[in-house]
Amino acid sequence: MRISGTIIADSSTVIDDGTVVVDGAEIVAVGDRERLAQQYPDHREQSCDLVVPGMVGGHIHSVQSLGRGISDDRELLDWLFDYILPMEATLTADEMEIAAKLGYLELIESGTTTVIDHLSVAHADRAFEAAGEMGIRGLLGKVLMDQRSPEGLREDTDEALADTERLIQKYHGSFDDRIRYAVTPRFAVSCTEDCLRGCRELADRYDGVRIHTHASENQGEIETVEDDTGMRNIQWLDEVGLTGDDVVLAHCVWTDDEERELLAETGTHVTHCPSSNMKLASGIAPVVDYLDRDINVALGNDGPPCNNTLDPFTEMKQASTLQKVDQLDPTVTPAETIFEMATVNGAEAAGFDRLGKLEEGWRADIVGLSTETTRATPLYDPLSHLVFAARGEDVTFTMVDGSVLVEDGEVTVADADAIREEAVEVAESLDLEEARQNAQELKP
Amino acid sequence: MRISGTIIADSSTVIDDGTVVVDGAEIVAVGDRERLAQQYPDHREQSCDLVVPGMVGGHIHSVQSLGRGISDDRELLDWLFDYILPMEATLTADEMEIAAKLGYLELIESGTTTVIDHLSVAHADRAFEAAGEMGIRGLLGKVLMDQRSPEGLREDTDEALADTERLIQKYHGSFDDRIRYAVTPRFAVSCTEDCLRGCRELADRYDGVRIHTHASENQGEIETVEDDTGMRNIQWLDEVGLTGDDVVLAHCVWTDDEERELLAETGTHVTHCPSSNMKLASGIAPVVDYLDRDINVALGNDGPPCNNTLDPFTEMKQASTLQKVDQLDPTVTPAETIFEMATVNGAEAAGFDRLGKLEEGWRADIVGLSTETTRATPLYDPLSHLVFAARGEDVTFTMVDGSVLVEDGEVTVADADAIREEAVEVAESLDLEEARQNAQELKP
Repeated sequence: MRISGTIIADSSTVIDDGTVVVDGAEIVAVGDRERLAQQYPDHREQSCDLVVPGMVGGHIHSVQSLGRGISDDRELLDWLFDYILPMEATLTADEMEIAAKLGYLELIESGTTTVIDHLSVAHADRAFEAAGEMGIRGLLGKVLMDQRSPEGLREDTDEALADTERLIQKYHGSFDDRIRYAVTPRFAVSCTEDCLRGCRELADRYDGVRIHTHASENQGEIETVEDDTGMRNIQWLDEVGLTGDDVVLAHCVWTDDEERELLAETGTHVTHCPSSNMKLASGIAPVVDYLDRDINVALGNDGPPCNNTLDPFTEMKQASTLQKVDQLDPTVTPAETIFEMATVNGAEAAGFDRLGKLEEGWRADIVGLSTETTRATPLYDPLSHLVFAARGEDVTFTMVDGSVLVEDGEVTVADADAIREEAVEVAESLDLEEARQNAQELKP
Repeated sequence: MRISGTIIADSSTVIDDGTVVVDGAEIVAVGDRERLAQQYPDHREQSCDLVVPGMVGGHIHSVQSLGRGISDDRELLDWLFDYILPMEATLTADEMEIAAKLGYLELIESGTTTVIDHLSVAHADRAFEAAGEMGIRGLLGKVLMDQRSPEGLREDTDEALADTERLIQKYHGSFDDRIRYAVTPRFAVSCTEDCLRGCRELADRYDGVRIHTHASENQGEIETVEDDTGMRNIQWLDEVGLTGDDVVLAHCVWTDDEERELLAETGTHVTHCPSSNMKLASGIAPVVDYLDRDINVALGNDGPPCNNTLDPFTEMKQASTLQKVDQLDPTVTPAETIFEMATVNGAEAAGFDRLGKLEEGWRADIVGLSTETTRATPLYDPLSHLVFAARGEDVTFTMVDGSVLVEDGEVTVADADAIREEAVEVAESLDLEEARQNAQELKP
């Protein structure tokens, strides 16, 4: 296939009237449209206004999609213990599959092609299958919670680690290596030391398996860890092996200088989630400082209950403008930097090589967008447009590993209407009362 | 006409399966769909998923629309003196009309029905005509600049005030009183004391004419005013008559306790512009404090060069979540409060009575939205959805004063494609060099 339009190949390369040629799962050529049309006459041409690398969602909870808007404007602990954890504890396997599909649907519709996905404790298999079926690329993991966690979510340490290992063996490298495994403890607060150390051990035992967890999202979490361990959260994670260039830490809002040095020294990846941090009132992550320290910072939407969308484009705008106002400097986190966070930095965090640019020999994860809108008029700079004005709604074409998932704005790999209808049915029948009661005793 | 769907009549009233009945320019009934279908069988029915009051853009620069994305990621003074002011100084009358139309097009397409609009110094007539033609409701004003302003924008004090009076006489109350006048000095920095006092005098002389200006957007502005006058900016504005319940001050990011008391005591309206304040790195306005003091706070997108869209729905999300993270409290500025800012508070600032709710006897400014998207799935709370997930793209229907401007997602009052094409042509031919040179000597 030849995908043509204005090509934003990477943060510093724009090709007007260009083409990306795809053979199998790979990009085989990027360049001038006319020349490549002559060179590859038998490749079908797909025209888009803008052609960009697929976005990487560096921290997503696809299975929380059924909770979009279920608990807005609430205190964090009410949000978590009255809604989010009870919902995760309540969903049946079938419902978890719908939840995951709804998440992947929104992601591929709006331009995310790779996801670092924090599933739930139970029924992770169904999310893996859904991701495989719907064609998204991902680093997925079942959540481990073995302390301070409500019934229906809390597992024994051994049980949690054994189920993780089973899933690694079943899904790591599955679907032509499009789906890989991340060992995913929820966060230090809900995991024992044995559990956290066990996570590191599993990741070391299986080649390419990574670690993905929440870290230092809010001040209460840090106090709890400090009470438990006498250490700051990132220091504790480092102590039990959860730093390193195979580790992705979501949020990192509240870190001190020593912790930041630790992140930099160990090559630990950080995923910034600005919309979530704003809506949950977590705080403003020191992204400019992280970038100054050469920490790899990816970008993520977190879950629909705390965002409330999975749109990677509005998340880019959010990331850029939140740092600008925090630093009182409109030149920080410019479009180029933010675009890198959402593409190559995310790919590096997820551990997929040759991902996040449109370049010969790189993976064919490609998104096309329309600019036939008032919001895209006029359009002086394609990259800047992408970060400050484009939206998931503009996506007309999505390809992962050379397979078309969305074409002419229509999802081709699933029945989008059916997924939405099933999701509404599940949402309408959701009864969280019992799980909410179970969670109350744990609410701090 | 009967407009049916889930009706969000105001921040505390949702009617499932309801109808709003419109006769002429007024709402004559709001209630149960079936009952009203029987009562008004001859009124044509328009179905929408959500039916809401039209949004009020409390501070907009429609004529800056041609500068969308022209100067992203730049220092404020470069942004202003190298791009925005030169663009305003350069545009011909025809180009100003295209710019205004592009702005109004985006506004009515995405759900804004009333605009408090900061035009430019020259060719304001063309923007008034465009607003009249395209059917939006508005409080518009030609900008006054009589000091510290580049050639092409700076006018003599008398000239600026005389042109303002001419425009008041020509357009205040025009188009069936849909268009009204706001005397619009740019800001204290670019206006002499005589000019500012003259603005107050004009507003007092003409019934219903209001005052709209920028105030305390950034710290440099405040220092300049302090150097000039020995007063804080809001105190200075009060001194020259630019406070009061007929005054709308955009931004008010940097105010001290005394100034806030002054705003409250005088009933001055404040328009909060979160996306602009973030992107230009102006600062975070103390909105929660303003609301606590019972200051009327409206919401605005500011101009496309500093946003980069005029979407009122994403602006609501921005307003809510920016306060949450600033206050580290997820319960502040909940959906209800934010929705009021974007509707009734804006209407109050603009001075149109019976505006901003769907209620019998109120003005028929109505917007319909689709929820047939993944982003709206599931949808637990319509009001919360509106603030945290809805977008301008969802708008399928826009009505002002009982006239349909957008139906089934298509603009009916103008040729949208033609406006966009003309806008692209102007943008491509724009040569700012001379105006930029003129502006350099004034750059602080």
